[in-house]
Amino acid sequence: MVTPLNIGIAGLGTVGSAVIAQIAAQRDTLAVRCGRRIEVVAVTARSRTKKRGVAVGKFKWHSDPLSLARDPNIDVFVELIGGENNPAKTAIEAALGAGKSVVTANKALLAKHGVALSALAEKHHAALNFEAAVGGAIPIVKTLREGLAGNSLQRVYGILNGTCNYILSRMEQEGLTFAACLKDAQRLGYAEANPAFDVEGHDTAQKLAILASLAFGAKVDQGAVYVEGISSITPADLAAANELGYRVKLLGVAVKTPQGIEQRVHPTMVRKDSAIAQVMGVTNAVTVDAAGINPLTLVGPGAGGAATASAVVADIGDIARGVRTAPFGQPAVRLQSVRKAPMQRHEGGYYIRLQARDKPGTAATIAKHLAQQQISLESIVQRHLDGAPVGQNGKSGSVPVILITYATTEDAVRKALAGVSRDRVISGAPQVIRIEKN
Amino acid sequence: MVTPLNIGIAGLGTVGSAVIAQIAAQRDTLAVRCGRRIEVVAVTARSRTKKRGVAVGKFKWHSDPLSLARDPNIDVFVELIGGENNPAKTAIEAALGAGKSVVTANKALLAKHGVALSALAEKHHAALNFEAAVGGAIPIVKTLREGLAGNSLQRVYGILNGTCNYILSRMEQEGLTFAACLKDAQRLGYAEANPAFDVEGHDTAQKLAILASLAFGAKVDQGAVYVEGISSITPADLAAANELGYRVKLLGVAVKTPQGIEQRVHPTMVRKDSAIAQVMGVTNAVTVDAAGINPLTLVGPGAGGAATASAVVADIGDIARGVRTAPFGQPAVRLQSVRKAPMQRHEGGYYIRLQARDKPGTAATIAKHLAQQQISLESIVQRHLDGAPVGQNGKSGSVPVILITYATTEDAVRKALAGVSRDRVISGAPQVIRIEKN
Repeated sequence: MVTPLNIGIAGLGTVGSAVIAQIAAQRDTLAVRCGRRIEVVAVTARSRTKKRGVAVGKFKWHSDPLSLARDPNIDVFVELIGGENNPAKTAIEAALGAGKSVVTANKALLAKHGVALSALAEKHHAALNFEAAVGGAIPIVKTLREGLAGNSLQRVYGILNGTCNYILSRMEQEGLTFAACLKDAQRLGYAEANPAFDVEGHDTAQKLAILASLAFGAKVDQGAVYVEGISSITPADLAAANELGYRVKLLGVAVKTPQGIEQRVHPTMVRKDSAIAQVMGVTNAVTVDAAGINPLTLVGPGAGGAATASAVVADIGDIARGVRTAPFGQPAVRLQSVRKAPMQRHEGGYYIRLQARDKPGTAATIAKHLAQQQISLESIVQRHLDGAPVGQNGKSGSVPVILITYATTEDAVRKALAGVSRDRVISGAPQVIRIEKN
Repeated sequence: MVTPLNIGIAGLGTVGSAVIAQIAAQRDTLAVRCGRRIEVVAVTARSRTKKRGVAVGKFKWHSDPLSLARDPNIDVFVELIGGENNPAKTAIEAALGAGKSVVTANKALLAKHGVALSALAEKHHAALNFEAAVGGAIPIVKTLREGLAGNSLQRVYGILNGTCNYILSRMEQEGLTFAACLKDAQRLGYAEANPAFDVEGHDTAQKLAILASLAFGAKVDQGAVYVEGISSITPADLAAANELGYRVKLLGVAVKTPQGIEQRVHPTMVRKDSAIAQVMGVTNAVTVDAAGINPLTLVGPGAGGAATASAVVADIGDIARGVRTAPFGQPAVRLQSVRKAPMQRHEGGYYIRLQARDKPGTAATIAKHLAQQQISLESIVQRHLDGAPVGQNGKSGSVPVILITYATTEDAVRKALAGVSRDRVISGAPQVIRIEKN
């Protein structure tokens, strides 16, 4: 029998503990499936004495991640500390520099330093695997890196943040406000005390940058992603979407356009009968469009100890079997720089909700500004809501108007709405949600 | 630069031509992603002169698959002939025996000879890859073999035959009969002139046997699969399912039970809000239940030249990158024998549709037989259909009765229905559809 693959784990929270438990529970299966035993031999965490679901006393304890990464007895350094800087970064660099393979769930670090770390891994013929960084247990990294290695991809998009999808699902199903759902999500542990990173789309943006690199050979660059969160979405938007045959999801979308790779995160209207629209609650999903395989969709748990551990253990298994794929599917030097997509040039359909002043000439004014920007409408819904104040003779009332446009540009929509606002025929800011064809 | 990986392709139908086209179109990408060029160098097919979408004149022509498999200039033998026996089998054996890796889409051959071929591949340190054999472009083989290598799987089930799903989708959406939809599917090229292999579930059974092996380490054995097709399904069943919150899908299900691995193919009621229920038309889908990741679902095109070629090319790419995973995820000698699951012991909920004679005592008789078998009912729907003949005073009429049971055993259901038939309170054979929890 070949020697075991020795693992060092930095970070013993929910995921780290679940990795240790899964490796122990699947000991024999892993040995058979990988051709060698997998042994956790050393660990580190902030607290040595904290109560955990698994016993760690039998592993060598290191005082810090860097010391663990340098331990000559480990073959693989598993980084589950998180954070885009030290100690995670230095420790991973030390491990790769010593020719040890690395498994990480650290999307923030990869989104910021992925290209450099990839180059370092390649230089030392080490693996740098990160299935757990995007979509939890969903094998999307492996699918893009290996399963679709020979395909020309057109678009990758997904529901990559369970917190946002949980909030949007409950808002839709129960007619609740964003604030109420967020509060509930926090109470249930689905949202952080400081929820901005999730609900403003930054978590999705980091994951999208990683997917875009795998799919299109782009340099990982979170800064190239246009980001908009879900806090402006109202129950009225979800109800209107539903009536028009759509659902609203926070999507990360990376798409090949004549202008380059467009990467964007924003609330998105998706057709209710599409696979991705069915994804409710904290579940994640990724859809890939490629020549001849429109579309391929992977749906599964995007977070949680066991789900994330499943991805980490699979990554370790690949290393045990001797697989060394370039971290982003191709040599780091081949990855292309991307510019931030100019959203003004984004093309697509739009959902627009206006609070129109209920006075003569309003409709004509709105229509004029849309026409000036060559925007054609697929549908218009105007309705006095039950109980809403209704103005008479040009007085104070207003009425919601929902417009769905045919494909146009972001620039045209913004200009038309600026004109509408200038002419004072609406109250408040217009709500704009992009429609994703699917 | 390392030497190219030289490919020989046997079979130049839709898939073979698409593989050649995709390798040509993705030439540079493949070289970068795999670390070496991939070159088709030799081919064989039944007709050398047949008009194809791609030119094959530049490749060395072999008169037969065996000769191609023995060509010393090829590194990888791609078998796209099909059929569970020769020439596919001999040619693959010759290639593996010479240490060449093999890529095949041949589910029939694998379902029959998978274990022996796997052992041969391992003996010669060659790869035997078959992503295209199950689910077309869906990377389910890779996911089970590598992505979930460290997981304890509980159940794998899927829509594995596009023809059946197309027919059931149209029957449901348009209220058509099985016969009418089959005819249309044949006209559109979605069903063969002899449709039995598809609609009676045998195609699904072959694919399921492969999945069960990958998921549970079972010896591939089509004979261990219980098989029932869709030809008995009526529009009335689909309408009743819909009303009760279900859809009917032909599923292949492999599940770990205390009695061993149960493998079965039959029409199945699935909850309408589940991911798999959304899968309509020729699309395929596979769901995996494992500890901590309930469920993971992959959805995509299950057939077609480009979709199948995508899987073949990915398999070739893995070989180019030097990956040699055991064909069924673990050494062939470790695969366990499975017995055919005794369906009488299958446990689950059941949908039962009876044509009950419209006379006094019928309901009591049915209830008695169910009670004798300890079967509890979740719901009963009895209704005179519009325009259906309604009997009076115990005369000739009959009325459909739909029963949904709580979990019980197949044995109990069969005994109860035998009793009901014996007592002559129903006309015709009862319709029974198993309900799959999802």
